[in-house]
Amino acid sequence: MNANLQVCIRQFPHDVVNVEHFELREVPIPSLAEGEVLVRHQFLSLDPYMRMRLADAQVGRFAMKLGDVMMGRTVGTVTASRDPAFTPGDVVLGWGGWQSCSVARAETLQKVEPLGDGSLSAYLGVLGRPGITAWLGVVSVAQLRSGESFLVSSAAGAVGSLAAQMARHIGARVVGIAGGAAKCESVVEQLGVHACVDYKAPDFKERLADATPGGVDVLFENVGAAVFDESLNRMNQHGRVAVCGLIAQYHSGEPYAFKNFPRILDRDLKVTGFRIDSNKDLHEQASKDLRAWFDAGVFKSWERVSHGLENAPEAFIAMLQGRGQGKTLVRLH
Amino acid sequence: MNANLQVCIRQFPHDVVNVEHFELREVPIPSLAEGEVLVRHQFLSLDPYMRMRLADAQVGRFAMKLGDVMMGRTVGTVTASRDPAFTPGDVVLGWGGWQSCSVARAETLQKVEPLGDGSLSAYLGVLGRPGITAWLGVVSVAQLRSGESFLVSSAAGAVGSLAAQMARHIGARVVGIAGGAAKCESVVEQLGVHACVDYKAPDFKERLADATPGGVDVLFENVGAAVFDESLNRMNQHGRVAVCGLIAQYHSGEPYAFKNFPRILDRDLKVTGFRIDSNKDLHEQASKDLRAWFDAGVFKSWERVSHGLENAPEAFIAMLQGRGQGKTLVRLH
Repeated sequence: MNANLQVCIRQFPHDVVNVEHFELREVPIPSLAEGEVLVRHQFLSLDPYMRMRLADAQVGRFAMKLGDVMMGRTVGTVTASRDPAFTPGDVVLGWGGWQSCSVARAETLQKVEPLGDGSLSAYLGVLGRPGITAWLGVVSVAQLRSGESFLVSSAAGAVGSLAAQMARHIGARVVGIAGGAAKCESVVEQLGVHACVDYKAPDFKERLADATPGGVDVLFENVGAAVFDESLNRMNQHGRVAVCGLIAQYHSGEPYAFKNFPRILDRDLKVTGFRIDSNKDLHEQASKDLRAWFDAGVFKSWERVSHGLENAPEAFIAMLQGRGQGKTLVRLH
Repeated sequence: MNANLQVCIRQFPHDVVNVEHFELREVPIPSLAEGEVLVRHQFLSLDPYMRMRLADAQVGRFAMKLGDVMMGRTVGTVTASRDPAFTPGDVVLGWGGWQSCSVARAETLQKVEPLGDGSLSAYLGVLGRPGITAWLGVVSVAQLRSGESFLVSSAAGAVGSLAAQMARHIGARVVGIAGGAAKCESVVEQLGVHACVDYKAPDFKERLADATPGGVDVLFENVGAAVFDESLNRMNQHGRVAVCGLIAQYHSGEPYAFKNFPRILDRDLKVTGFRIDSNKDLHEQASKDLRAWFDAGVFKSWERVSHGLENAPEAFIAMLQGRGQGKTLVRLH
């Protein structure tokens, strides 16, 4: 390993992301300064929020510019260290980005234990930010209780699939929403939920009503726009909505007109937006719960793994287009 | 008093309410059955929610049909009783409707003490449902704290003006929104708030920004649509929105497209709809607080009183058109 392979931003996407927006580059591995650590990445996490970072970066709301390595969460192994807190062989989580290895300030890395089966990918899923995000919505924001009715959009996604499994473990009646019949079948099969409704079906509204005969007590919203709108109409009185993502509303030009917005008032709903980094005081508690549930076998591993950094752009695009199922990862070695 | 004057529904309004939708009728006062009480009304309360009742009644969601006496909250004096709990001279609150007197089942009436100044109108305002509604939004839903920034729409309305005064008493920096320069001046003068912004001004957005230089921690929303949309954009991170009314969204044909809907997510907002009758467990606590604040002189009486039942339709229409200021009442004798 004498060179570092990187995926850099060649152009910012305006609408649909394609492979032309990225470019592959090979650079020498720089030497370490005092307090720096060299990490060889095993897995790179690909997540929907990254689309927003690209948009934010373009208008100066996020520090990433043309030519920079694309950002992303990574797990890997320390191969050299000039900080006393780390030694070669340590397994670390970090913001390594789309590259085969990275030089990081020691304080940006988090040391974790190797997992039983040798794979580290759970640290980018259930034991990482997707897990914490799902926990925040289900446990902290919505305070889901046993016997309640739980609906989650993007149920085949990293966060949605974990939220669905947590809700099931808590004892809720769980219904998912996903795009396409095949994906909905996978959700039911992989996650063991009561039903999964295809939002692409022409009779989505009726199917959603059929799947939630007693209404919905808690909605975990990842999508926004029309899918969210129909879900709002299924809410029970005093229902809670945990708004985790509005991906369908962030990059369309026109604002979406919710037909069912007044349900917020006439059903006494509580609609709460939450982001992982706005709730850092809860991460420790979340991580404890997640680890206990993970060790108890609550979560099924549902991953779509691409191999080789050069395939990261295509895997990212497939995920954004909804072609992925479960957690999207790139395995680098 | 041998006859009972009534205002009945002649037609249901489809869009704008006008006097032709009502008709005046004189009927004999019926004799009392066991358990009934005859109440002579002193004041009739006129409130924005009544417009919704008319719409609900029209589609069968509220029990009121053509020819019925228009519903409404009343305060008055018992003149005859066939229930041991009430005797002539008792002051009672009830759902007497738009008529000079009403026959009520005893269990639907609430006995109250006469107030110091002889007027009973406070029981339809600060000590009645508008007061409880404002309390629910400010104290229970938003949990407003001293030093926070508080914004309230429809600040010249019955609920809005009470919410503004409560917020001031709690120690918040209070800004109102109202329609028209004259009304805004009245709000500042009557309620002693920091500022009141005219939503009819062409530069409303800029004025709102100027009036809330540190953003908004708590929004008490009574209006909906464009006014709400611009207010959402002023919210601080982790802000709370108490949705009390969406009057602008209930009777327009097209759903409103919120430009700033994504602020719910990217500012971690908590948006809660609440209705007085969905929170009955809190009414006793609210009433206690309200009475204590009332006795301590926290609230300024701000009423627009019409005289004579025959003027109720015109007073109702004026209120719906935003021509009223403070609590709208009809004094019957």
